Formats: sequence, C-alpha cells, structure tokens
Amino acid sequence: MSSFRASAPLTENWEHFDVARTDGVTTVTLNRPEKLNALTFDSYADLRDLLVELPHRDDTRVLVLQGEGRGFCSGGDVNEIIAETLKMDPDDLLAFTRMTGEVVKAMRECPVPVIARVHGIAAGAGSVLALASDFRVVARSARFAFLFTRVGLSGADMGAAYLLPRVVGLGHATKLLMLGDTVPAPEADRYGLVSELVEDDELDDAVSTLATRLAQGPAFGYAQTKALLSRELDMNLSGAIELEAMTQALLMKSADYAEFHAAFTGKRTPEWKGR
Amino acid sequence: MSSFRASAPLTENWEHFDVARTDGVTTVTLNRPEKLNALTFDSYADLRDLLVELPHRDDTRVLVLQGEGRGFCSGGDVNEIIAETLKMDPDDLLAFTRMTGEVVKAMRECPVPVIARVHGIAAGAGSVLALASDFRVVARSARFAFLFTRVGLSGADMGAAYLLPRVVGLGHATKLLMLGDTVPAPEADRYGLVSELVEDDELDDAVSTLATRLAQGPAFGYAQTKALLSRELDMNLSGAIELEAMTQALLMKSADYAEFHAAFTGKRTPEWKGR
Amino acid sequence: MSSFRASAPLTENWEHFDVARTDGVTTVTLNRPEKLNALTFDSYADLRDLLVELPHRDDTRVLVLQGEGRGFCSGGDVNEIIAETLKMDPDDLLAFTRMTGEVVKAMRECPVPVIARVHGIAAGAGSVLALASDFRVVARSARFAFLFTRVGLSGADMGAAYLLPRVVGLGHATKLLMLGDTVPAPEADRYGLVSELVEDDELDDAVSTLATRLAQGPAFGYAQTKALLSRELDMNLSGAIELEAMTQALLMKSADYAEFHAAFTGKRTPEWKGR
Repeated sequence: MSSFRASAPLTENWEHFDVARTDGVTTVTLNRPEKLNALTFDSYADLRDLLVELPHRDDTRVLVLQGEGRGFCSGGDVNEIIAETLKMDPDDLLAFTRMTGEVVKAMRECPVPVIARVHGIAAGAGSVLALASDFRVVARSARFAFLFTRVGLSGADMGAAYLLPRVVGLGHATKLLMLGDTVPAPEADRYGLVSELVEDDELDDAVSTLATRLAQGPAFGYAQTKALLSRELDMNLSGAIELEAMTQALLMKSADYAEFHAAFTGKRTPEWKGR
Repeated sequence: MSSFRASAPLTENWEHFDVARTDGVTTVTLNRPEKLNALTFDSYADLRDLLVELPHRDDTRVLVLQGEGRGFCSGGDVNEIIAETLKMDPDDLLAFTRMTGEVVKAMRECPVPVIARVHGIAAGAGSVLALASDFRVVARSARFAFLFTRVGLSGADMGAAYLLPRVVGLGHATKLLMLGDTVPAPEADRYGLVSELVEDDELDDAVSTLATRLAQGPAFGYAQTKALLSRELDMNLSGAIELEAMTQALLMKSADYAEFHAAFTGKRTPEWKGR
Repeated sequence: MSSFRASAPLTENWEHFDVARTDGVTTVTLNRPEKLNALTFDSYADLRDLLVELPHRDDTRVLVLQGEGRGFCSGGDVNEIIAETLKMDPDDLLAFTRMTGEVVKAMRECPVPVIARVHGIAAGAGSVLALASDFRVVARSARFAFLFTRVGLSGADMGAAYLLPRVVGLGHATKLLMLGDTVPAPEADRYGLVSELVEDDELDDAVSTLATRLAQGPAFGYAQTKALLSRELDMNLSGAIELEAMTQALLMKSADYAEFHAAFTGKRTPEWKGR
C-alpha cells in the first residue's frame, strides 16, 4: 500500500468484472461476453472506484483493460442502461452521466499507464474507454464506433469531444462523433487513434510485451510523463515549460536517474526501482 | 421560425450569392464563376448575417457551402478588396478584418452542421471557409492554398492559425500558413484536412448523401456534438467532462432518445424528430 | 540592429557552437561531432542567449539549426551533464532544467522562423530542439528518440509534453514520450513530425532552398504567422479571431501588402521589404 493511505480499506473483490494481478500488471476483464461486454450501472461504478484506488496499491504499475469473448466492449447496455434512464428524473440522469465521466477523468488523472487491448468492437462507451487509455493496442480486425448520435444523444459523451480532437484532430473527430459510423482499425490507425496495430493472432503477445515493459521500467518517470501529458493539454506554453523544469529537477534526485548513470558507466542494464 | 425570435424579420433575399432551401438543407452557392467566386465586401457581409440567422430558421438542419464554375472560392478579390483596403484608414481596416473573422466565428458557433463542397481551388479566405466547416467533402483534383503571406499579410487570417493546428497539427499548419503553397487534395487528406475525399464525378452525390443524412438524422444530437466539439477546444478536461455529463442528461429527456429505444425494441428504423 | 535595442552590446562570438551569417540566414552548427553534438551546460546557455538576441539583429530573417558530422544532436552529454547533475543541490538542478526550458520558450516566442536540419540521430534534448523548430527538414535515414524515460527521467522535458501532442496528437505523443523508442524518419513523417522528408543527398539543397525563401520573402508576414500560431495554441476561438483581425489590419498598412498589389497589377514579381 502507498504511504498516504487513509483508514478506508482497499477493495479486494470487484464483482462486476474480473481482476487479475501479476508482476505489477493489473488486468481488468469485462466479462459479459454474451452481451459483447455491455456496461451496466454496476460495472461503471466498479470501474470508477477501481481507478481511484489504483494509485494507492503497491502492486500495480500498469493497468490492462480488455474484454472477454468476441469484442472489447459494446458500450452501455440497451436494456440495463438505456431503458432504465428513460424512466429517471433529471437528478438521477445527471448522477449517472457524471459517473461515466468520472471513469474517464480517473483514467486520465491516474498516474498508472493504461493499455486498452482492443479486439472486435469498441462501441459507444467502449470506444471512449479505449480513447481515454494511454495505449491502444488494436487487432487488425477490430472496429471503433462512437455511436452516440445513433441513439439520439450527443456525440460528446464521457469527454470524447475533448479527447478525440486532441488525438486525431478536429476534422476526423467531427466525422467520428457526429456520424457515429463504424471505423475499421486500419482507418482508425491512419487517423492516429491506434498506438500499435497488430495482426489478430499477435494481439496477446503485443499487449503482454508492452505491459511487462511498463511494469518493469522506470515507473516514476512513466507516471510523470503521463501526468504532464494530461495536464499540459490544459496549460499554456510558459506554465508547461516551468512544470517540466520542476518535474525533471525532482526526478534528478530519484533513484532511477542515479541507477541509469551507474548502469551506463558500468556497461550494464539498469535495474529500475520505479522511485 | 425558432421560439425565441425577436422583432427583426428574417432575410429572404441574399443578393451576393445564391441560396436554395430544400428538405432541411440550405445551400449557399458563391456565384461569381468568372472571378473563381472571389469574395467581396458584400458577400462577406451577407455570409456573416446569413450564419447568424440560420439557427433561427426551422427550415435548415444543415448548410452546404459551394462555388459555381471551376472552383470553390479564390478568396478576397484583388481588385474589389485588396485595392480598396490600400486606401482605407485603420478603423475601417479593422472593421473589415473583424467582419471576416465574424464569418468564421459564426460558422463555428452556429449549431447547424456546415458542409464545404470543395472542387477546383479553395484559396485564401476560401480555404478558411472550408477549414471552418464541419465537413470538407473534397474532389480529388481540388487544391487548398492558405496564400495570405503571398500577398504580404500574416498567414493567420480569419482564425486560421487557431483552427488549422487543431485540425492538422502544428507542424503541418506552420508549413501551410507560413509558406502559402498550393496543396493538392490527396496531400491535404494525408494531413487530416479532408473529411471525405472522392472522385471528381462523385462529388455531388457524396455531398448530397451527407447533407440528406444530416438533415434527416437526430438534429439535436448533431447540434450538441458540434457545439461541444467547438467549445471544448477551449476548456479543460474537468470542465469538458462536466459539460458532457450535463448535455447527455438533458438529451436523455429528448424525444429522439426515447424514439431510439422504441425503434430498437420494435425492430424498426428510428424516425428522428430532431428534438 | 533593431530600433529598440538597449545598452547591452550584441554578442559577436558564441564559443560553444559555430555561427555563420549570410544573406539573412543565420546558421548555428553544433560542433562536437565526436560526441554526436551532445549538449553541455555551456552550449545550452549560448543557445538560450543567442535566441534572445536574434530578434534584435537586422541581419537575421531565418535561423538554421544543424549538427556537424554523423548526426543532428544526441541530447545532454552523459558525462558533462548527467554525471554533474547527480552531484547538484535542488536549486542548481532547477536552474539547469529551467535553462533548458528557456531555450525552447525562446525558440517558440522568437519571431524569426527556425529550420532544423535533421540528419542521423535527434535524441533527447536534440529531438526537442527539432520539435520546437518551425520547420523540420529531415533526411530519410534520420531518427528521432525522445529517450528521457530511458535515463530515468520524465518524458516531459523542455516542453515536449506540451508541444508533441499539438504536433502529432496525444496518442502518438504518449507512445513517443513514455517509451522513448527510436523512430525512423518515415514513421515520424507519418505522425506529422516532419515538415519535409527528403533523400539524404538532397538535404542540403532542401534546407538551403527553404532558408533562402524565408530570408527573401515577406518577413513581417512570416513573423506574424509564427507569432500567432504559437500564441493561439493558448487562446480561445474568440480571442484568436480578434487577434487575427488586429494583425491583418496592421499588416494592411505594411509596405509588403502595397508591394504585392503593385507587383500584381504591374504583372511582376514582388520585391519584399519585410516590413
């Protein structure tokens, strides 16, 4: 556990998806394959809280998000979410939409790098979960669909209208969010939405290789890369440069920076401590 | 007419371009083909005011912007604009440049999606009109030229230095705006400036298909997608996520969201009301 | 010298790199080829101050940044910088990291366009110097490596986490800065990091052609393009459009704008004054 943990215990059992932890890699597997891993009120809530707890755990240096069965995640469940929201009062509706946004906010503000393992379909909220990840490792046969307007909502959902233009540019983002069309992985790759495009049978190896690398590497440096990439989207040049100067001055006092130099002069591979 | 219209009548006759309205699609055709549809003080002013009126009309769900003859729009007319501005006092110059910027501001803030039908040349202000549109449907033989430095001005004109980096990235935007070179459509497409690249003889069909789709689709959802894409360029992550939560909560009370669910469970196509 | 120069003399001798000035082009050549032009405390300091002085010189309309020997710049020297920083107190560390950030800030805020001539490797701070330039003319065999995490630091260095997402999008930027992998020029080009990709034996010609063009062109217009591209990254739409209106109104009173019109009507090539 981290040094600054309050009295609340960490949650050991998440009931609405599977969680596995090995060698610094926490893997969350959406496990409703018969529904293409459609999200429910419960799985949103679990996801939100797992992300908030993540930085407090010593056992997690990278989070992998994946789906069981034929696809990554088909978004909010039509019966369990859409049907229910039609009956809700405004305050409950807002509580729900805020919860979905909090998942994305936690993904972006959490210092742990997040890898989305995308196969089959990433639709609706599923496409935004992939978008909010730091790395999208994508099978060639996968598809993205930001299909919100097709259910009569705004294409701006869970922060998509903030994130997508910053990933693929305003032109592509307008097309994807306004029309909600299904985009094959190679096209998404051409737009800049894919971190690593791999053949379908190489997806597991590619995710595992990247996760291991992030888990065994200089975790403090990785965390401060993610933190600044996120924050500096909202900062001006002068503030960003000052923040980076402060950050590097702090990291020059870290064990890993000294370890790099010792390894370099000793002609050996660094043993990263992550601090 | 919209519910919140004041006493001023809507303008029925725009004298400086052609306007056609059919089935929710308003088409503005720049109609000086002998001048490659060069803009004049008058056509700028008409464009500005048409855009301001657009959201107040019930008959318009999408705006198509196009040019008659060999090209889309060659920008400000050398004789009718450049020659005249050379004689102007600073206050009139600023009134003119502000008017041109107001056209772009209205295009971005207007809730109606705008499609630019680009063929031949889109030069100077013509290239910025295309840039400020939500969709650029572009013929393969078309060209863009942000040629402002070539007339001795700044490449930053009518908001181009704000919009272009957000569409194609700062590197490409610097090249395009600083040098003012003519960029063929396939190269513009590679940069992310093109929404849909089509063969020349398929341009009309592509524009018509997209316009019809936007006119007949869930207009409230489209409008709120455009509004948030525009506004969130200037917002931080936390504010953007809150805005999206608010927006979706409101849209979950819309007729179109209920219609989606009714159509889905009834296994029929939704009939969008746009509200 | 510019009109608003204070008492401090301009520096004629920069000791830590070569400086050549011809026909409006100032060329800075990093000259430690045996170290792949690794930067030292001294060369950082010289670079920072040269950039601050640049706008005060009448003899410079464009800056070319290049490296002698096998590569562009391999970044901070392991012995002369990393080893030394390991011994420093926090205040000195911050003074150092701030100095490196000031180089980038000066590159972005300096009204003179900067061309990076990239061959061989552009690594660490070298890759950020290229990134902070306005144009990256890149040999096909060149490589970029934002390798900061590989020395145990944050990938956010010298403003890279601010600039790179705005050039190549957040997805590619995350991959490049978090992992620090070496990226071949054609891949960097696909991401939008390259302004002009050329064959190795055409690099000198391409740089020289671009530098000459910028030096002989409408320099005031170029300067105001660069200034607004930089500033408007941090402005909202409405402010940006107002700034562009103000800028063009001022430039419509410039000699170059009148010269364009005179040349156009006289059917001759403009002779740009740069004012």
